[in-house]
Amino acid sequence: MNDLVILAPIGSVIALLFAVYLTFKVLKMPEGNEKVVKISRAIRKGANAYLGRQYKVVAIFFAIMFVILCIMASQKFITPFVPFAFLTGGFFSGLSGFIGMKVATASNSRTATAAQKSLNSGLRVAFSAGSVMGFTVVGLGLLDLSFWYFFLKYWYTHVDILETAAEQIQAITSAMLTFGMGASSMALFARVGGGIFTKAADVGADLVGKVEAGIPEDDPRNPAVIADNVGDNVGDVAGMGADLYESYVGSIVSTSALAVAAGYEFKGVSIPLIMAAIGIIASILGTFFVKTKEHASQKYLLFALRRGTFLSAALIAIIAYPLVTMVLGEVGLYYSIVTGLVAGVLIGVFTEYYTADTYRPTQKLAESSLTGSATIIISGFSLGMLSTMFPVLIIAVAILASYAFAGGFVDSAMAFNHGLYGIGLSAVGMLSTLGITLATDAYGPVADNAGGIAQMAEMGEEVRKRTDALDSLGNTTAATGKGFAIGSAALTALALITSYIEQVKIINPNYNYDLTLTNPIVLIGLFIGAMLTFLFASLTMSAVGRAAQSIVVEVRRQFKEITGLMDGEADPDYATCVYLCTKAAQKEMITPAIVAIVAPILTGVVLGVAGVTGMLAGATITGFILAIMMANSGGAWDNAKKYIENDNYGGKGSDPHKAAVVGDTVGDPFKDTAGPSINILIKLLSMVSIVFAGFIMAVSLF
Amino acid sequence: MNDLVILAPIGSVIALLFAVYLTFKVLKMPEGNEKVVKISRAIRKGANAYLGRQYKVVAIFFAIMFVILCIMASQKFITPFVPFAFLTGGFFSGLSGFIGMKVATASNSRTATAAQKSLNSGLRVAFSAGSVMGFTVVGLGLLDLSFWYFFLKYWYTHVDILETAAEQIQAITSAMLTFGMGASSMALFARVGGGIFTKAADVGADLVGKVEAGIPEDDPRNPAVIADNVGDNVGDVAGMGADLYESYVGSIVSTSALAVAAGYEFKGVSIPLIMAAIGIIASILGTFFVKTKEHASQKYLLFALRRGTFLSAALIAIIAYPLVTMVLGEVGLYYSIVTGLVAGVLIGVFTEYYTADTYRPTQKLAESSLTGSATIIISGFSLGMLSTMFPVLIIAVAILASYAFAGGFVDSAMAFNHGLYGIGLSAVGMLSTLGITLATDAYGPVADNAGGIAQMAEMGEEVRKRTDALDSLGNTTAATGKGFAIGSAALTALALITSYIEQVKIINPNYNYDLTLTNPIVLIGLFIGAMLTFLFASLTMSAVGRAAQSIVVEVRRQFKEITGLMDGEADPDYATCVYLCTKAAQKEMITPAIVAIVAPILTGVVLGVAGVTGMLAGATITGFILAIMMANSGGAWDNAKKYIENDNYGGKGSDPHKAAVVGDTVGDPFKDTAGPSINILIKLLSMVSIVFAGFIMAVSLF
Repeated sequence: MNDLVILAPIGSVIALLFAVYLTFKVLKMPEGNEKVVKISRAIRKGANAYLGRQYKVVAIFFAIMFVILCIMASQKFITPFVPFAFLTGGFFSGLSGFIGMKVATASNSRTATAAQKSLNSGLRVAFSAGSVMGFTVVGLGLLDLSFWYFFLKYWYTHVDILETAAEQIQAITSAMLTFGMGASSMALFARVGGGIFTKAADVGADLVGKVEAGIPEDDPRNPAVIADNVGDNVGDVAGMGADLYESYVGSIVSTSALAVAAGYEFKGVSIPLIMAAIGIIASILGTFFVKTKEHASQKYLLFALRRGTFLSAALIAIIAYPLVTMVLGEVGLYYSIVTGLVAGVLIGVFTEYYTADTYRPTQKLAESSLTGSATIIISGFSLGMLSTMFPVLIIAVAILASYAFAGGFVDSAMAFNHGLYGIGLSAVGMLSTLGITLATDAYGPVADNAGGIAQMAEMGEEVRKRTDALDSLGNTTAATGKGFAIGSAALTALALITSYIEQVKIINPNYNYDLTLTNPIVLIGLFIGAMLTFLFASLTMSAVGRAAQSIVVEVRRQFKEITGLMDGEADPDYATCVYLCTKAAQKEMITPAIVAIVAPILTGVVLGVAGVTGMLAGATITGFILAIMMANSGGAWDNAKKYIENDNYGGKGSDPHKAAVVGDTVGDPFKDTAGPSINILIKLLSMVSIVFAGFIMAVSLF
Repeated sequence: MNDLVILAPIGSVIALLFAVYLTFKVLKMPEGNEKVVKISRAIRKGANAYLGRQYKVVAIFFAIMFVILCIMASQKFITPFVPFAFLTGGFFSGLSGFIGMKVATASNSRTATAAQKSLNSGLRVAFSAGSVMGFTVVGLGLLDLSFWYFFLKYWYTHVDILETAAEQIQAITSAMLTFGMGASSMALFARVGGGIFTKAADVGADLVGKVEAGIPEDDPRNPAVIADNVGDNVGDVAGMGADLYESYVGSIVSTSALAVAAGYEFKGVSIPLIMAAIGIIASILGTFFVKTKEHASQKYLLFALRRGTFLSAALIAIIAYPLVTMVLGEVGLYYSIVTGLVAGVLIGVFTEYYTADTYRPTQKLAESSLTGSATIIISGFSLGMLSTMFPVLIIAVAILASYAFAGGFVDSAMAFNHGLYGIGLSAVGMLSTLGITLATDAYGPVADNAGGIAQMAEMGEEVRKRTDALDSLGNTTAATGKGFAIGSAALTALALITSYIEQVKIINPNYNYDLTLTNPIVLIGLFIGAMLTFLFASLTMSAVGRAAQSIVVEVRRQFKEITGLMDGEADPDYATCVYLCTKAAQKEMITPAIVAIVAPILTGVVLGVAGVTGMLAGATITGFILAIMMANSGGAWDNAKKYIENDNYGGKGSDPHKAAVVGDTVGDPFKDTAGPSINILIKLLSMVSIVFAGFIMAVSLF
């Protein structure tokens, strides 16, 4: 039944065709009046300028890494395919972000214009744009995976012939794993750079525009307003896309790699690929159920979006059953997959509970604004920390259950490896809904931009109300999307850690290391890994602070120097703000990137394999919790502010509202820069460790 | 050379005699004028009322635990001594806090009055009061340890005779370990309850008094001002004392327990006790070097306090050399001790760098207040997260070095156990300076109280300036003290984790568990442990929020209902605020306490020994980092505010100052409630795991 793996390239092509179809559908929609077109063009120009510059910086990084990898390949630390796999991983990851962003910046104006017609029209356009992103990511991811799978399989069975299936798979999956490092590196730049850009612009615009000058959000007189809207695209669309591209391929390749040790051979390698294909079909079907009626409540709107995801998840569970049991001849692993699928949905549900203003926690957070900004900050923190409990328990149960279903506790020599393969499959299961989950997520920034355009182009009360409804929904989907991203990152990272150990065993079966928890080297590794997530969060947050500072100065300057700006008689200089954000983001993303790449190598050189494994586990565990806390605190602060703006506790302009704005501003770098960047960090650390395993084992002190 | 262990009881008696001597010296000082006496009495009364009530709640808890332990002893899960050891641990820990607080509340007025004479006089009185606390803690700790050591040794060699020395030591140290659980439980209540009290009062007083009513800090018209001053004593004195009492005895008993596996027998058990005695003598000598000249700069004052600690550390290093090498006949373990000693000093240095306003980080934090409260919050976070890097690296090096010095990497069958014993000794080395370190630390709240009294009793500009200088210094010593507390807690917890494994081996040498990092049970344990620290921090912070809320309401009520209060014609009702804080603290400390005690048992029942070990490691590692972050963010916010008040960036009353007050208020529960409580959590989790090990092994599912 190995032939079923052909579903993978087929699925990827279907996903890409569907993305093309949606793109044309969106582009056929009217863009809107002259003012709308002008604003939309400014945002597009800014986003293109940013990406252009980012890709230049990234190109230099990839060139350097390519040379380093070629040197390592020449020293036989890695196979000769690795440098090229690294490049394609980076290229496709970047391409996903690029296409997603292109379509998003073309759809914001069209969403605003469609919202003139009805709420449902607006929703459909924004969601279609988000879907392009979703299906481009899964389509390109699966295409790249399929290419390397079939190419390497051919290579090792026809050109550089390896004897046994186990050897072949080992060689194939080893190369594919390193292709993940390219995707991770690209994702890091996209997430960190985009995250810094978007929040520097947002914080800068808010601090001077809203707080100092007292003009409303998205007011065209604010010089940073275009930069703010650009930020939604480069951070929340391109960054998110690259992040999940990376989780997606990471979970698939790491699980495939674990198939060898589990003795499943090619059957085991094919399952993750087949699951990805099933997920694509189910996600496409799910998108057709996303629609709403006019005057829908927030709850109904949310349900409209959710319906698609739930349906897709159910479809995957149904279709996977016959296929997985047919290929493997057993049912246990099917349940491992379903475990991941259910865990992903549950994490979303709990994230929503803690961050949506329809539930108690966020409402109580809003209430704490009555005693000022200090108390809303303390409460928001406390909420974020508390909100880590359920996701941790869900992941804990998912690990245990998927391990158990896969036969991890059976009394056999292979039990342990079977179980680990099961954990990998749960990550694959969770990410199989990615097409539609990402669509729901990328919908948010498009709706956000549409709201901004409606405001700037003065499209009237009714339109603004509709885009507001769509945007507010986007906040919640963004929060649940982040929960999903970090949950899948944690499972993927665990699969990667075990893949790392497998790699070590392959490179040198006699290499001596001790992974016992009481080994001080392991403990030190755990300490360092946990600390790295705090360090990384600190670096990205202070980067936002510095970048925002430069925007604040510039916006103040424009308000002072451009006469007639406040009366609407003169236009602000949007481009300079975009330029400053771009420059700052490019500069500031270097240090975190170096930390993420150098730390595992340095740890490896000093502490060896046991230290690296400890570091990976420490970073994954602490990073998972820290990222959830930051995402949920930030999401709750944002929605608490929105809740107050809906005429609670004094409404807009009241003292509680001012306190809530402080909370929201603190939450911005939490939820959109530091938090999401940690996802990438924990995966990139593993990827770098895997690629440099041979080198580290050759030179390490311990 | 085993006879040298007699130094332990001798040292403890010397410490206690020195504490008595200092107490009489302080009490001989004049208390001050009528107004001072009246205020001081109000604080004393409040503190007594609080402790009285706290001990009642704690007594109920101890009674319940005593019964549970008796039942467990009757089922042979533990030895019959355990319930009694548990009681004495709790009793002595509580007694340390009680005595320390008694002297502190008697010294605040005397410090203020002495400050009328000179800066040095004020410093000497406050430091003497702090020293009483320091030497009471080490004296009672070592007394209790000595009692159990000699009693159990007699018991197992004369009454219930055990054959070999190894069996005797095993029985002795097992019982002594559980005595640590009593100390931990008491410490938890003292730290959490005290932490909630002090910050509820502080935040409540600030929010209504400073922010709403616009009256200065420590203004006698503020109804919460006495509660605020009481809080300094019950939280920062009694809480801190109980915390470090627990680390002190914990490090000694866990290291002694590790001596068995390392094969050092009674020699190995005696070393930690001897080190404690050496530390006491050196600390007493060190106290005589703490003095200052008039008009000293902050830097000089800090140095005046530091001098004592540095000298003591140097003395310990010198005296320990001949004694340790004599007893053990080798020099390696001596270096393990010195490693801990140096690490403790270094953590203090880095904490100071990140939190004192004489250095760049806090000055830059103050600068970020120029753009408002949101940016100072973000920057403070970022600072706290960044500040975790060096402590982690210091602890990492300390672990590695003390393990290596003890022979951990030698090629021998016992290497691993030797190394672990070395790590334990480094904790003992770090804590050997506790007498003087705690004196420096407990000095802070006394000086803080003195400042409050000087303000309330209107003792004049000059006195207030002197007490301000002393108080500001106290902020820095408090921050470094917290760094020391958490650093020693981390090393102690690591020693306790290995002691736990030893206990498991003793209880059932054939018990099957797998501590490999890739074992999913271990990973799940790590996740849960890390999450527990976040959960615990969340619970304590939201407790402060709720408690502060009740104070806010009460203070507002008094301002409204008591006529003539604002004009100083009528007295506020201080007692009600004290009562409300007391009630809230007692109520709120129950949930965190239950979490800390139930979590390890529940984890053990479901996941077994591997899960518990993972949980302990996860909590220690993440807790260490989280606690440092919270302590340092809080300390830096506090000092950034003080820096602005010293006429920087606009000075008192300016917008940056208001922003800095928000930062300070957010930092309050960080640094004084949640952060320090985590220290106890990580040790208590280990202690509970050790005591319930037999029960868990009998019933666990895995």
